[in-house]
Amino acid sequence: MARIVMKFGGTSMAGTERIRRVANIVRRQQAAGHEVAVVVSAMAGETDRLVNFCREANPLFDPAEYDVVVASGEQVTSGLLALTLQAMGCKARSWLGWQLPIHTDEAYSKARIEGFDSEALLSSMAAGEIAVIPGFQGLSGENRITTLGRGGSDTSAVAVAAAIHADRCDIYTDVDGVYTTDPRIVAKARKLSHVTYEEMLELASVGSKVLQTRSVSLAMKEKVRVQVLSSFVDDDAPAADTLPGTMIVSDEELAKIQEDLDMERQLITGIAADKNEAKVTLTRIADRPGAVATIFGPLAAANINVDMIIQNIAKDKGETDVTFTVPKADLLRTQALLEEHKDAIGFYRMISDDKIAKISVVGVGMRSHAGVASTMFKALADRGINIQAISTSEIKVSVLIDEDETELAVRVLHTAYEMDATEAA
Amino acid sequence: MARIVMKFGGTSMAGTERIRRVANIVRRQQAAGHEVAVVVSAMAGETDRLVNFCREANPLFDPAEYDVVVASGEQVTSGLLALTLQAMGCKARSWLGWQLPIHTDEAYSKARIEGFDSEALLSSMAAGEIAVIPGFQGLSGENRITTLGRGGSDTSAVAVAAAIHADRCDIYTDVDGVYTTDPRIVAKARKLSHVTYEEMLELASVGSKVLQTRSVSLAMKEKVRVQVLSSFVDDDAPAADTLPGTMIVSDEELAKIQEDLDMERQLITGIAADKNEAKVTLTRIADRPGAVATIFGPLAAANINVDMIIQNIAKDKGETDVTFTVPKADLLRTQALLEEHKDAIGFYRMISDDKIAKISVVGVGMRSHAGVASTMFKALADRGINIQAISTSEIKVSVLIDEDETELAVRVLHTAYEMDATEAA
Repeated sequence: MARIVMKFGGTSMAGTERIRRVANIVRRQQAAGHEVAVVVSAMAGETDRLVNFCREANPLFDPAEYDVVVASGEQVTSGLLALTLQAMGCKARSWLGWQLPIHTDEAYSKARIEGFDSEALLSSMAAGEIAVIPGFQGLSGENRITTLGRGGSDTSAVAVAAAIHADRCDIYTDVDGVYTTDPRIVAKARKLSHVTYEEMLELASVGSKVLQTRSVSLAMKEKVRVQVLSSFVDDDAPAADTLPGTMIVSDEELAKIQEDLDMERQLITGIAADKNEAKVTLTRIADRPGAVATIFGPLAAANINVDMIIQNIAKDKGETDVTFTVPKADLLRTQALLEEHKDAIGFYRMISDDKIAKISVVGVGMRSHAGVASTMFKALADRGINIQAISTSEIKVSVLIDEDETELAVRVLHTAYEMDATEAA
Repeated sequence: MARIVMKFGGTSMAGTERIRRVANIVRRQQAAGHEVAVVVSAMAGETDRLVNFCREANPLFDPAEYDVVVASGEQVTSGLLALTLQAMGCKARSWLGWQLPIHTDEAYSKARIEGFDSEALLSSMAAGEIAVIPGFQGLSGENRITTLGRGGSDTSAVAVAAAIHADRCDIYTDVDGVYTTDPRIVAKARKLSHVTYEEMLELASVGSKVLQTRSVSLAMKEKVRVQVLSSFVDDDAPAADTLPGTMIVSDEELAKIQEDLDMERQLITGIAADKNEAKVTLTRIADRPGAVATIFGPLAAANINVDMIIQNIAKDKGETDVTFTVPKADLLRTQALLEEHKDAIGFYRMISDDKIAKISVVGVGMRSHAGVASTMFKALADRGINIQAISTSEIKVSVLIDEDETELAVRVLHTAYEMDATEAA
């Protein structure tokens, strides 16, 4: 017997017919002898509907009241899933965020989970009751509803799994796992049986929308074994225990699994493409301590998320160029802020470009292999793809290229790293 | 300064534009120097949508999970009204049923309010904050959401008004008060400036849908002054303090008001018509103790609400006929139950008719006047309207007639009791 948390997203919960499919998947897990807690999202589209109501009511909305409104979507689906499970003869009940409660801080609309009372939940589950928990919501110290920010249901699921020491946290979504790259771009993309937390974090933060970044961080911190798998399966598909999806595990666990299976460590786990960023270059900035801070201070204060930052070594005359990326949606605000602080920063020209893509290759295996980056640069150069900027981390190499070349670059790299699925695979 | 509870129904809360109208009405009340609490319904249609989801999920639904789902409608509108008031510069916050909390029993989906913690609410209101409270919902002793049954928001409003010792509970609806009869039937129907709790109870229970019966009972018990008025008014209409609607008050208060105004007590306050009942007659039942109990026991056990019961004195041979009414929707079930218990009851024939209407004249004034019933019977007879059955209470006379004659009967009686508005009125 295992203790399992199952999480279903908005597409899986969109309407009573789909909720019945979800209930079937849950029921089979319980029938296999496991203790089961389920974390659910709102029906697809419902949170947008509620957010729009809030915007119409008050464009500068009070986040505490916003949370009262938007948390209702998950309340509805959790009640409906409990009802559907009961109709199938299972014992089930809903546990709202304030009932458990899931304690959070007071950062309404983007709260962070602080703690979790699992006692009542565990005794209910031990009595054979399936626990249905609305994702995305918690309770502040002021006894008011909080929400965790968009996509927060993944984080709720991992937090529940950590609190009840679940053997596994299964995240059901509309894809059946994590792939080496987007299968819509590369037909030969392979589903990964395992990926490490760090790899998943890098993949999530560069455009793979399978999991919310925060949920992966939390899983890594709390050592929760997360599995990504599809809820759109036939009723007679194998149960989740047979691992049809992708397991997200620690570096050590992955090494052990690969050793057991006598598998060779892959250099690269995945390739991600992100078209949601824009590039800004400020030229001829003084190469002195503190100069860079004058650029990014105002952006941070305006909550603009700066991703890549590239600064070359100083050219002549103690001047340098600084390039960085921001979300496309924030480009206009970024430009206005930099103009406003032009004198303090002391740049000569601002050049921006929103027709770019960021291509990243990710893999824990690259730590010990210096050749990963050069393989990347050579493969792209061979096809005439110009690299505009480069940024590396311990397990990732990212480059900026022309947006039009996104798909070509991903396919070229997928082949270059020998990741294409063979017929035997 | 007064302390006022304002309640708005689903039609008034249907969409952000209408919620803005509501917020305007609320804001003007606060601007007049009053402490204000607002009780809101879900958007019109929303509760039906949620109930349908529950039915689809599980036709025999667990009422506790049903409550989790359907209570969300009022949660949404309370958050949205708070946001809208804030957008107008008012201080406002929502207080959900579990936050106050409004304690109820454990009768999920039809819970009764048991108590109410008003301390936090009162201190928030004293600090100038408008309290927005979702109607229809409460918290059980098991720390779970309860709902009060359809139309329960009126009851929530009266319960809040009682708990905070409000000077007045204003129920805003889509009509602008209580009329002598349905203005769609009688063009000369008059709006009543005052009506007693008992009259309102009788009018509510015979088809006037202005207020839920339970809310009137609670107001009478807790001596809450209730006002019915319209939320569909111009922005420059007089404030609610100038009483444009109908005040529901105690018998003593009404007598005092009428004395002050040197007004004559009206014999009849209103005329109501109800087409939602069906008539059942059982013939030749033994006229012995306990015989009637054998009829109504099975109906009560099946939760079928029997209204009028008429039994004539025994005919020859110690036998009698019993006539009663049930809701039209329950007629088939009633017939099946009576057939099933035919031997135990011992009736000869069952005759039923769902083409009937119940016409009631209501007024506290009739207590001391024997002539009310005879005026009714004579007026109907003069127009050839046949009375099929009669039932009287202390302040009400009801008759059953052919459904086709409903509107005619109401008009005839409205004139007979001299209730038609004159041009001077």
